[in-house]
Amino acid sequence: MKVDDLLRKPGAWLKRGSRDDVVVSSRVRLARNLAERLFPEWAGEDERRRIWDEVSGVLCGLPQLQRGLCVETSEIDEVSRRFLFERHLISRELIRKRRGSGLVVRGDETLAVMINEEDHLRLQSMRPGLSLGRTLNMVNDLDDAVAAEFTYAFSRRLGYLTACPSNVGTGMRASVMLHLPGLVLMNEVEPIVRGLTKIGLAVRGLWGEGTEISGNMLQVSNQVTLGVKEDEIAVNLEQVIMEVVEHEHNARLRLMEQRGEVLRDHVGRAYGILGNAHLVSTGEALDLLSGLRLGVDLGILKDIRRETIDELMVLTQPGHLQKLAGRRLKARERDRVRADLIRRRLKAGEDKGAGD
Amino acid sequence: MKVDDLLRKPGAWLKRGSRDDVVVSSRVRLARNLAERLFPEWAGEDERRRIWDEVSGVLCGLPQLQRGLCVETSEIDEVSRRFLFERHLISRELIRKRRGSGLVVRGDETLAVMINEEDHLRLQSMRPGLSLGRTLNMVNDLDDAVAAEFTYAFSRRLGYLTACPSNVGTGMRASVMLHLPGLVLMNEVEPIVRGLTKIGLAVRGLWGEGTEISGNMLQVSNQVTLGVKEDEIAVNLEQVIMEVVEHEHNARLRLMEQRGEVLRDHVGRAYGILGNAHLVSTGEALDLLSGLRLGVDLGILKDIRRETIDELMVLTQPGHLQKLAGRRLKARERDRVRADLIRRRLKAGEDKGAGD
Repeated sequence: MKVDDLLRKPGAWLKRGSRDDVVVSSRVRLARNLAERLFPEWAGEDERRRIWDEVSGVLCGLPQLQRGLCVETSEIDEVSRRFLFERHLISRELIRKRRGSGLVVRGDETLAVMINEEDHLRLQSMRPGLSLGRTLNMVNDLDDAVAAEFTYAFSRRLGYLTACPSNVGTGMRASVMLHLPGLVLMNEVEPIVRGLTKIGLAVRGLWGEGTEISGNMLQVSNQVTLGVKEDEIAVNLEQVIMEVVEHEHNARLRLMEQRGEVLRDHVGRAYGILGNAHLVSTGEALDLLSGLRLGVDLGILKDIRRETIDELMVLTQPGHLQKLAGRRLKARERDRVRADLIRRRLKAGEDKGAGD
Repeated sequence: MKVDDLLRKPGAWLKRGSRDDVVVSSRVRLARNLAERLFPEWAGEDERRRIWDEVSGVLCGLPQLQRGLCVETSEIDEVSRRFLFERHLISRELIRKRRGSGLVVRGDETLAVMINEEDHLRLQSMRPGLSLGRTLNMVNDLDDAVAAEFTYAFSRRLGYLTACPSNVGTGMRASVMLHLPGLVLMNEVEPIVRGLTKIGLAVRGLWGEGTEISGNMLQVSNQVTLGVKEDEIAVNLEQVIMEVVEHEHNARLRLMEQRGEVLRDHVGRAYGILGNAHLVSTGEALDLLSGLRLGVDLGILKDIRRETIDELMVLTQPGHLQKLAGRRLKARERDRVRADLIRRRLKAGEDKGAGD
């Protein structure tokens, strides 16, 4: 499988899932390291390349990852790196690495392993909707398969040992991607974020640490990995997220009841602009697609499928546009290609307006 | 005829005319006063009412104005006053007057006379496109008919005497309404305005003195009325306007050639928003309708008639919306009714988008 093969279809995490009107996707990653080997940052290039060879050799043959993508970072061109990042398959950190680091991805993108990022292994599972339990099970199965082949750096007292102390213990980070347009439009997202932070959860934008809220998307994840069991982390986070979902549903109801005109105007404008603009930036596309998603969820837009919108949110990112075009595109060209793609997809999907 | 009868159809000045892609309408008004009678501002209410009775009695019977509107300002409710102002049939000044002032309008709105505004008579003719010669002829014919019935205040040395010295002489103001989106989008409207001002012309916004440029509409009129003949004023202004038209055409050409994407985006967004928004303010409506008008003129929008756009520019004004609704509307209600009206008219007019 090649990087380009991923482009042909959306990842399985873009399919329908539980409570997917609010929870776009669930993700669990486990940080793992090989026993008695230097962490990637301390190892030289030769040692990292030996680890890459050993680990990728085994992983790319595992039944879970077979016939998937198996590639060293140095072999991936710049546009493809950006593309994989937008697909949530590699991190900003891995993008910067060259020889001796790489990526193994299952064809449907539900499983991915980064090798020699901050840790020797970063195992990740990603699924649509709110599904932290099943997502954890999936990555645990992969973890067991890897553990059968290698000895992990593990302390009976502390748990899994990791390059950064913040990951020591379970080495686990569970996160969900939330779409919260109701809370944003009702000006109620701030207290929710404060509440989540207060109980020890991290809140980030669509593209992870240090990114702003675009398209009314928020990532929420656990911070504590030490002294808690994996399934407790998943269950606790899922319970909190259920409450956020309820708040969002409630905000949408009040939006319909109290500010129906403003809501229909908001959704109608998003639909009208995306259906007719010829230059659209990444940020504007995300914000307007968020408006469409809300319109679909509330039955205001009846002829657009939510899957179309979610796919467009991914496909209109700069890396995806350049992969689709098969070449590098300047910012202005991307704005044009992005607008064209959205217009075509919205026209193909339906033929009635958002009008009356 | 009643004020409401004017609502049923657009004034004749909204029909097709010469160079109407740039020149929306031409207007000529003549200030006239009765000999040996006090100017309206100096006359008491009794005298004004006597003049109103005398003058309106004659005017409303003239063949040019027969079966038109013939109404004293005090009989017009507030919404209708605003409506007539938006129709360019009465001035801000006449709106404020009550008993003894009024209005006579020909059914197709090409001729109108304000009685006891600043002067005893303000005769006006208004026609579509660039047509100052014919517009002047029309108002001159009316002027001759009035002069046959009354003796005007006239000085052989100065010409027609008027309440304000700036109108003494011909008492004539010729003006054209220009739509200049090309010059505005190319950032070239400022030097044009400076040039026009330098040669003694007045430049104002859509609603006359002291109004801002909305919808890329500009009113240009002569300032000097003394020592020039009426037809010279008309010919001179028409020549200058022909040059402005050429500048605007040139700007539109360069816009197409050099900034085609930005242009299509501008037009597409205007179309998309107006076709799907549910709350639209007066100012936004004018600006976006201006975008549609440009799109139609440049062949980007093929299924909308320019007449539809010009009618909407008039019909979506606050007074018109309230006349159409048959009641007073709050600002928010107007924004909703305005958006609904535009959406319906755009949908009725065509069924294809601005898209590709």
